[in-house]
Amino acid sequence: MTKFTMYGKLIAQPGKREELAQMLLQAAEGLQSNPNCELYIVNVSEEDPDAIWVTELWRDADAHAASLKDEQTIALIQQARPLIAGVEPMRLRPIGGKGL
Amino acid sequence: MTKFTMYGKLIAQPGKREELAQMLLQAAEGLQSNPNCELYIVNVSEEDPDAIWVTELWRDADAHAASLKDEQTIALIQQARPLIAGVEPMRLRPIGGKGL
Repeated sequence: MTKFTMYGKLIAQPGKREELAQMLLQAAEGLQSNPNCELYIVNVSEEDPDAIWVTELWRDADAHAASLKDEQTIALIQQARPLIAGVEPMRLRPIGGKGL
Repeated sequence: MTKFTMYGKLIAQPGKREELAQMLLQAAEGLQSNPNCELYIVNVSEEDPDAIWVTELWRDADAHAASLKDEQTIALIQQARPLIAGVEPMRLRPIGGKGL
């Protein structure tokens, strides 16, 4: 399986989670037309009021890397950066399951 | 949105990750026919040789709770338990995105 999964935990600056989440939903909207992106789900933590988890599933690692060079994506990352206090990316390898 | 998401990190006993992963894939297989389960993806960590991440997306919390009462599921959990050294469940609330 060559699929590429990224689980990222983003910590928003205090009080900025909602604003950051809206930007991520906007990013997801922009990915609707990209067939290489299979999932881009934005979750908020029920336990940490500043944490957001983004689940990404891509056709492969190249497709993910290419997406980071997209101009709209770069602009959105620039815009989101001041709202982000920390990032914990999780490198995972999907091996199967329902919906994959 | 009433959907229910669970991200669970399972730590296998040393050397038992592959065996545990196969059991989880079997669980996912059993969920193929359950329309209330939208995703059940099994991932292995690229960073921790004992870690498995399971991403579950359910129609709602009740659907998830009901699944835990299923006889086959209970049997599988019993079988998997000796292979598991630790569990870190993550309670998240999906708010939107592609594929949701």
